[in-house]
Amino acid sequence: MGGDFGPRVTVPAAVQALSHFPELKVILIGDRNSITSQLSYLGHQPNARLSIIHTDRVISNTEKPSLALRKSAGSSMGTAIELVADSKADACVSGGNTGALMALSRFRLKLLPGIERPALVSALPTASGRKTWMLDLGANVSSDADSLFQFAVMGSALVEEIIGHAPRVAILNIGAEEIKGNDLVKRCAEMLSQTHEVNFIGYIEGNQLLHDAADVVVCDGFVGNVCLKTCEGTAQLFIDKMKERMMASSIKGWIARKLFSGLFNELKTLNPDQYNGASLLGLRGIVIKSHGSADVEAVVNAIGEAIHEVKRQVPSRISDRLEAVLLERHY
Amino acid sequence: MGGDFGPRVTVPAAVQALSHFPELKVILIGDRNSITSQLSYLGHQPNARLSIIHTDRVISNTEKPSLALRKSAGSSMGTAIELVADSKADACVSGGNTGALMALSRFRLKLLPGIERPALVSALPTASGRKTWMLDLGANVSSDADSLFQFAVMGSALVEEIIGHAPRVAILNIGAEEIKGNDLVKRCAEMLSQTHEVNFIGYIEGNQLLHDAADVVVCDGFVGNVCLKTCEGTAQLFIDKMKERMMASSIKGWIARKLFSGLFNELKTLNPDQYNGASLLGLRGIVIKSHGSADVEAVVNAIGEAIHEVKRQVPSRISDRLEAVLLERHY
Repeated sequence: MGGDFGPRVTVPAAVQALSHFPELKVILIGDRNSITSQLSYLGHQPNARLSIIHTDRVISNTEKPSLALRKSAGSSMGTAIELVADSKADACVSGGNTGALMALSRFRLKLLPGIERPALVSALPTASGRKTWMLDLGANVSSDADSLFQFAVMGSALVEEIIGHAPRVAILNIGAEEIKGNDLVKRCAEMLSQTHEVNFIGYIEGNQLLHDAADVVVCDGFVGNVCLKTCEGTAQLFIDKMKERMMASSIKGWIARKLFSGLFNELKTLNPDQYNGASLLGLRGIVIKSHGSADVEAVVNAIGEAIHEVKRQVPSRISDRLEAVLLERHY
Repeated sequence: MGGDFGPRVTVPAAVQALSHFPELKVILIGDRNSITSQLSYLGHQPNARLSIIHTDRVISNTEKPSLALRKSAGSSMGTAIELVADSKADACVSGGNTGALMALSRFRLKLLPGIERPALVSALPTASGRKTWMLDLGANVSSDADSLFQFAVMGSALVEEIIGHAPRVAILNIGAEEIKGNDLVKRCAEMLSQTHEVNFIGYIEGNQLLHDAADVVVCDGFVGNVCLKTCEGTAQLFIDKMKERMMASSIKGWIARKLFSGLFNELKTLNPDQYNGASLLGLRGIVIKSHGSADVEAVVNAIGEAIHEVKRQVPSRISDRLEAVLLERHY
């Protein structure tokens, strides 16, 4: 039911994901009428791989997390999280209220041992066509050095599963020199330079974010959220200006479309907004947040991210890594 | 002596600024030999509008601010600030160590009454060709709500002098709704909504930064610095990708250069990096920080910013506005 478009996007995305991923089973949770009418519009109906659980209520986007928590029973989001908690689903994908999703996940799924706060992580595109993962993107509005350190450990464990070797982990800061920054980043840097479990490479600045300077970038949730949205807004501005020119009905526009649609499509992939499926790390279960504005293809991507994390057993990988860090400290 | 290129850039910039601004007088402070050799290379020599003060020492870019402060006497930066403090110069323009410039300015020029921390402010280009001013861009690594409120008052006073009417002032946040954000922004928002001296329009998110959503955007120095550099890095990535295509020696590249150099030049102006001359607000004097990497044209811009602030008596305007805010609170 979540996201700006509800079942009009989530139902076609589920149908498309089922044909993309042969191992997938989907449970659609929400208003049965809306869901079945979308399904029949697409010429589909519930079957062994696609089931529906009806719920009457939806947690709205403006609901405060604390209130959403109290009123979650019987809501589509609450029911989805319950299924994961009861091991009746392997992962939850939601386009709904981020704060509510976080509060519910934390309350019902519980945090992994050694984790004080979950973090929202997502991949950003880079100049060379690779990716940089960034966390926290706003699961928390403030963090201490211990949390930032845990974000680094979690991000490192996640990304190692994806790229196959120890990722370069950096802290986002206002300068690359050791003396730069606030107490938070300085204390986290000190902790990271003392562990062997994370390949810590130091600080990076905002202008290096999309330039492959690190595989994992750690920051507090306020900074991460503002920074990601700034990237998206700047990229969108450039894309819009080019689009304007490409769509012109003049001869120039025609030539631009003929010659530069390849470049234009490449530039579009450099908008972090094109990715979808931010993962809520630190929980004893897999929860993927889809953009509110995501289209069908983007929601399919978010489902793909969930499948990936289930296969790689990301929560266990994180747990193992945390244990190694704790052991390292004791001996 | 400051910036990545020292007198090779600052001296030609001074000469160019003298012909741009007939009312300007320039005092060049630093190594007399380097300065005079640059001047004679340009066919110039000291005259009634261009004088030299020789200093032996330069504060390096890696110097800690506290140490720079102790060793400032006789340095080029220290002497420049002294001249402003002693009313022998109306403004100081420096491309040197930002932390040292701030510490020296604060120590020698003193803060305006009612200001606890100075702030670095600069203009960002926007989609419509207008500007948005943002502060703090990194004069401080952390701030409290009182400081953020003072940034809003200072930014408002500065920008009103430029655009001629009360600017729309917003706080940078992780959401537009009132419930979003950390304690810092919430408390500052409460203070701003209680004053009539600032036209406070609420929160804006990172993706609205370059989209004319506000005339003045207030944030703490860590967030502002990371955010500005993220803008610059993202813009540079798009510009580089286009440039690559435009510079290709193929027929496609030739057509691109013929048809789209206008668009390319427009896009280049959307990189916040193109502006130069960040102002250090909150001092009893005018200090302009020029980018370390600034070229001649950019340093001329920074000198132009200094002239503008001298003419508009920006420190007095800020002082008046602060007094009005204090009066409003008392009655």
